[in-house]
Amino acid sequence: MRASRRGEVDPFIVMDVMEAARQAEAAGRRVIHMEVGQPGTPAPAAARAALARAMETDALGYTVALGLPALRQRIARLYRDWYGLDLNPERVIVTPGSSGAFILAFTALFEAGDRVGLGEPGYPSYRQILKALSLQPVGLQTALENRLQPVPEDVPNDLAGLIVASPANPSGTMLSRDALAALIERAAEIGAAFVSDEIYHGIQYDGRPVSALELSDNVCVINSFSKYFSMTGWRVGWMVVPEAEVRRYERLAQNLFICPPNASQVAALAALDCEDELQANLAVYAENRRQMLEGLPRAGFDRIAPPDGAFYVYADVSGLTADSLAFSREILDQAGVAVTPGLDFDPRRGQGTLRFSYARATADIAEGLERLAAFMARR
Amino acid sequence: MRASRRGEVDPFIVMDVMEAARQAEAAGRRVIHMEVGQPGTPAPAAARAALARAMETDALGYTVALGLPALRQRIARLYRDWYGLDLNPERVIVTPGSSGAFILAFTALFEAGDRVGLGEPGYPSYRQILKALSLQPVGLQTALENRLQPVPEDVPNDLAGLIVASPANPSGTMLSRDALAALIERAAEIGAAFVSDEIYHGIQYDGRPVSALELSDNVCVINSFSKYFSMTGWRVGWMVVPEAEVRRYERLAQNLFICPPNASQVAALAALDCEDELQANLAVYAENRRQMLEGLPRAGFDRIAPPDGAFYVYADVSGLTADSLAFSREILDQAGVAVTPGLDFDPRRGQGTLRFSYARATADIAEGLERLAAFMARR
Repeated sequence: MRASRRGEVDPFIVMDVMEAARQAEAAGRRVIHMEVGQPGTPAPAAARAALARAMETDALGYTVALGLPALRQRIARLYRDWYGLDLNPERVIVTPGSSGAFILAFTALFEAGDRVGLGEPGYPSYRQILKALSLQPVGLQTALENRLQPVPEDVPNDLAGLIVASPANPSGTMLSRDALAALIERAAEIGAAFVSDEIYHGIQYDGRPVSALELSDNVCVINSFSKYFSMTGWRVGWMVVPEAEVRRYERLAQNLFICPPNASQVAALAALDCEDELQANLAVYAENRRQMLEGLPRAGFDRIAPPDGAFYVYADVSGLTADSLAFSREILDQAGVAVTPGLDFDPRRGQGTLRFSYARATADIAEGLERLAAFMARR
Repeated sequence: MRASRRGEVDPFIVMDVMEAARQAEAAGRRVIHMEVGQPGTPAPAAARAALARAMETDALGYTVALGLPALRQRIARLYRDWYGLDLNPERVIVTPGSSGAFILAFTALFEAGDRVGLGEPGYPSYRQILKALSLQPVGLQTALENRLQPVPEDVPNDLAGLIVASPANPSGTMLSRDALAALIERAAEIGAAFVSDEIYHGIQYDGRPVSALELSDNVCVINSFSKYFSMTGWRVGWMVVPEAEVRRYERLAQNLFICPPNASQVAALAALDCEDELQANLAVYAENRRQMLEGLPRAGFDRIAPPDGAFYVYADVSGLTADSLAFSREILDQAGVAVTPGLDFDPRRGQGTLRFSYARATADIAEGLERLAAFMARR
């Protein structure tokens, strides 16, 4: 069968670890999961109840391509509550996860062959989605002194677009208002589209992240119900685009997706009013983070920076190994803890890094940290 | 803001009609909807019950990218039940609707710039998805004597791929086993990938459609839970690819979608065992079709071919109008019936055609036909 070069995307390295973890569990071992980038909690109870009710009375057929009008309005209100912004709901586009938003943004913004910049380390799928769409990902090697976020000097002149994430995956670091503004300005200077990945907004521990929309209307902001709203598997996210661009995006979304899943939209609308439950989840992450920042250095993983947000700790383990994949396999075998080798996030330096996720229950985190400490003591 | 040429896809002409229908309804008029390509029925009761149960006990997080293993196995069994085929479940890929399957197939198969053939009239989004992915759609004008399906002589040598649908939208015609085999052979002869859109399988009135998988393993088959299984808004479909290609598709799916909506997969798995309810829906379409084939000619729409499957009648109205969009507006204004102008399906000849959908309740179909007859009598 015919096969395209652009379809030859890289495998996720972490999948090897996950498959090994699955086999270990199938063989009866208990594995602590610090590799998975998703909450252990379900969608908020009221979100599930809203869908259960809707299934009794509504055929849940196609919605309009841009999403349920009530959901778009309610998302716009979130920008008032979170950032004090007055956002026109017409600018909000509900998407099949942030994944769908990236596909939509990249096809709307870029021509085949265009070069698009992204910080390394960063979310691996940016690179692969770009490649699948015949675009050229340009990895910007970030510096530790910039807290692994790109700065204007990292951005070459020939980019058609720049993708930035704050809080970032895997580092959890946030861009300050000034740092974000400088990157938006740099993108404008070279005529590059600015894509701001804000899917970890809401999960922050000290101060709040700044939305690119607070600084400019001429940006493409992408967000999701997966993380703060604890709805990964529901595949519902959103984007905010300039008013003048909405019709272009609408036509693309009609054709590429028809609409986001109706049931997920119904649940998402209700999830926006579940502040108490979501803040309780956040309190768990905060306690997990506290234990991680104490336990990881005690275990011997001491080259870490405290994350501002998200639920990851990115550790420099280059003093311990030159092969993070082999090291993560060793940790799984010896300690029964699954962690993610850095190679997925940073093809160049990731052989010396690991990502620890603390999105699950606190008891698991505590047990994982004990296991890691015992493993490192034996090593 | 930056804007790509490939993002400049055509608007759906029918959206104009739908917006006018919405305005008429907002003003208190009752409109009969013959423009919408979706069942009026919800997902089967047992599918909704299965999801309601799962929401109590399961966090419904990400699934693996290829879909729930139980769902892939159950879909493979459908190929035994429907076609007598013994299909390896590993070849089944669950997707976010057939829309997701098309994105996956086109990126996996084709390089930017490749030319991909599709029959005209046909599903408008093939053309627009191809364009958004920097591919060149090549419309193959089909002949009435071929029942508006392409034949090998219509297929030029320089295509990288060929998309075929049976039963087709908008015509409802099916390809015979020999006609389908001839097209698969023609694609193989020119080295083009063969993509078979089988999303209307299950909705047929006389004989059954042939799956491309009955004729070759070297094809990409796309199907969906939207139509026969009455789950449009759930956005869950599937594809079947050659065994050797599964890993390529898996890596693409991991990055492009992460996974299909978990809740929709849970519902879809249960829907596969709802034969009684789905056959009852089918009996409604069959009765609607009978009334359409009787009522449309009586009203004066006599240039129609009986559809083999799906829930559409495609009418040649070139003797009545040279502007199908204006004509559909006139029908909406005067008769209160929303229909789809053919321009969405056939940019060249669609000014002389209309598509009537009969997917909704029989009482609506009957009333729509009476209104159409009265309108045409006055005209």
